[in-house]
Amino acid sequence: MKTFITGHKCPDTDSVMSALVMANLEKNLGNTNEIIPCRLGNLNKETEYILNYFKVDAPKLIDSVKDADEVILVDHNSFLESAPDISSAKISKVVDHHRIANFETTEPLFYIAEPVGCTCTILYELYMMNNISIDKTYAGLMLSAIISDSLLFKSPTCTPKDIEAATELAKIANIDINSYGLDMLKAGTDLSSFTPEELLNIDSKEFNANGAKFQIAQVSTVDIDEVLKNKSEIEKAMNNSISSNSLDLFMFTITDILNCNSKAIVLGNKASVVEKAYNVTIKDNLVFLPGVVSRKKQIVPQITENI
Amino acid sequence: MKTFITGHKCPDTDSVMSALVMANLEKNLGNTNEIIPCRLGNLNKETEYILNYFKVDAPKLIDSVKDADEVILVDHNSFLESAPDISSAKISKVVDHHRIANFETTEPLFYIAEPVGCTCTILYELYMMNNISIDKTYAGLMLSAIISDSLLFKSPTCTPKDIEAATELAKIANIDINSYGLDMLKAGTDLSSFTPEELLNIDSKEFNANGAKFQIAQVSTVDIDEVLKNKSEIEKAMNNSISSNSLDLFMFTITDILNCNSKAIVLGNKASVVEKAYNVTIKDNLVFLPGVVSRKKQIVPQITENI
Repeated sequence: MKTFITGHKCPDTDSVMSALVMANLEKNLGNTNEIIPCRLGNLNKETEYILNYFKVDAPKLIDSVKDADEVILVDHNSFLESAPDISSAKISKVVDHHRIANFETTEPLFYIAEPVGCTCTILYELYMMNNISIDKTYAGLMLSAIISDSLLFKSPTCTPKDIEAATELAKIANIDINSYGLDMLKAGTDLSSFTPEELLNIDSKEFNANGAKFQIAQVSTVDIDEVLKNKSEIEKAMNNSISSNSLDLFMFTITDILNCNSKAIVLGNKASVVEKAYNVTIKDNLVFLPGVVSRKKQIVPQITENI
Repeated sequence: MKTFITGHKCPDTDSVMSALVMANLEKNLGNTNEIIPCRLGNLNKETEYILNYFKVDAPKLIDSVKDADEVILVDHNSFLESAPDISSAKISKVVDHHRIANFETTEPLFYIAEPVGCTCTILYELYMMNNISIDKTYAGLMLSAIISDSLLFKSPTCTPKDIEAATELAKIANIDINSYGLDMLKAGTDLSSFTPEELLNIDSKEFNANGAKFQIAQVSTVDIDEVLKNKSEIEKAMNNSISSNSLDLFMFTITDILNCNSKAIVLGNKASVVEKAYNVTIKDNLVFLPGVVSRKKQIVPQITENI
C-alpha cells in the first residue's frame, strides 16, 4: 500500500517542505504504508537552496497519482492545482491554509485548515498536539517554509502563530532567522537563467470564478526593473498561454520582497478587472501595486470579487 | 457583530448539540461577537428529550444567515444542506465529520474534519487541545450526540475516538451510558404523531452525483412494520417530492436501531441503482438491507458510486 503526499503544481517552498514534513509525521503517527513525499513540478531556486543547506533529498517528481492507494494533500486543496487524475484518487487527509474550492471527496476524511501564513505552521501544531518531537533537520525545513511564505514575517498573510512556530523551530534548528532567511530569500530571486515561459511557470495558479478563467503568476525579486527588461517577450509568452488555455485574464506579478511592493503585467479580455480591483490605471499593460505581496490575501480575493 | 453557528437542515441531535457546544467553545476561545447557536429546522423527539433532560434552551430557529457577520458550520459543509443564502455569507470555521462536497469559500478559514462518528467527538478534542474545561451540562449534551450518531456505539461509523470521548464525557456528566442512551434513543423513535410528509423530513438529505439528484431520508424505530402500516401514503408523499424537486431517486430508509437492520422504500426513475448497489431486488418498492444503519457510511457512498 502506498501513500503519496503532494503539494500543489508549480511547487513553492511550502509545498515541498510540507510534503517532506508530513511524510515524517505520518510515519510517527503509525501509518504503515510506504509513504512517498511527492512534488508536481520542478524545484525553484529557493527550495533548491534549502534542500542543499539541510542535505535533504527532494520529494519524488510525479505527474499522476494513479499508483497511490491513498493521497494526502498539503498546501492546497483545489483539484485545479493538484495532479491531473486527483479526482479519482482516495484523498485521506488534507493539511492546508488556503480557501476551499474545487475540492470534493466521496468519503469522510481528515481535513485541517487554518487561516495562517504557512502550511508548516499547522504541521508544527500537529506535531505538538500529537507529542511528536521535531529533529533539527525537520525544524529547519519547516522554518524555511514559514520564512518563504511570510517573506520573513513581512507578508500580510503572516499571523502570530507563524511567528511563534518559527521562533520555536529556529531554536530547535539552531538557526539565526534573519541572516539565514535573507540568504534563502535572495537565493530564490535569481531569475537570470529563466526563459519567459519558465518565468511564468515558477509559481503560477489558475482560478475560475463567475464563469471566467484567470491565471495569476508571481515571482519574487530584489529588482523589479531587471525582470521587466524582457517585458515584451514575457508578454508574448503570456499571450500564447491566454490563447492555448482560453484565459480571460493573465496577471504576472513581480514582487519586490525587500520593499514589499509589486508590479504586474496584465493581459486578457478581462484586464480591466485589475483596474477596478485596485483603482489603478493600466499603462503599457503594467500596473504598480504598492504594498501588495500576497497573492492569496491581496490578489485572488480582489480579482475574484471583481471578475 | 454577530456569529451564527448552525448545523444542517432537518437537524438531528448532533447538529443541535454541536451548535450549542461550539457556541460555548467560541466564547471560551475569546470570540467577542454576539454568538448565536442556531438550527435550520424543527427539533426531533430525541433532541427534545435531551434538551428537556439537561434543561437547556434550543438553538434559535433561523431560515437565513443574512444577519450574521460570520457563520460557523457544524456537522455539515455542503451548501445544499445549509441555509439557503449560505453561499453569500462569510464562513469563518467548519467543524464536521462528513465528506466535503458543494462547499467553497473565497477566503482561507479554520476547517477541521475527521472521519469519526460524531461532530461532538471532534469538539471534545478541541476542548482538550485548548485546555478548556467541560461542565456537567455540556458533557451531557456532547455524550448524547455521540450516543445518537453511533446508535450506542453499534453503528459502523463509530470509531475508538467516539467511544473514548463518550466514556470521558459520561464521567464528567455522571451518567450511565447504557440506561440513559436507551431511554434517549427510544424517545426518538415514537413516530406515531407524524404525517407522511413530516416523516420524510425528520432526517432527510439531498445529494447530487453524476448529473443525478437523489434524496435519502432516514427514520429510526424499534418496529419497522409499524412505520410501514402507512406505506401507500408515504409513497404518495415521496412521489410528490420527486415531482416537485425533480428527483431521480428517493430512498426512505427505516432503521431498526435495536436489531441494526433497515428497510427502505425506493422510488424514482433511478430506483434500480439501489438494486445494483446492494445486489437486492426491489419488491413492491421495498428492499431489506441487513446490517445497514448508517446513511453516511453504508448508503451515500454506495448510491453515489452506482448512480
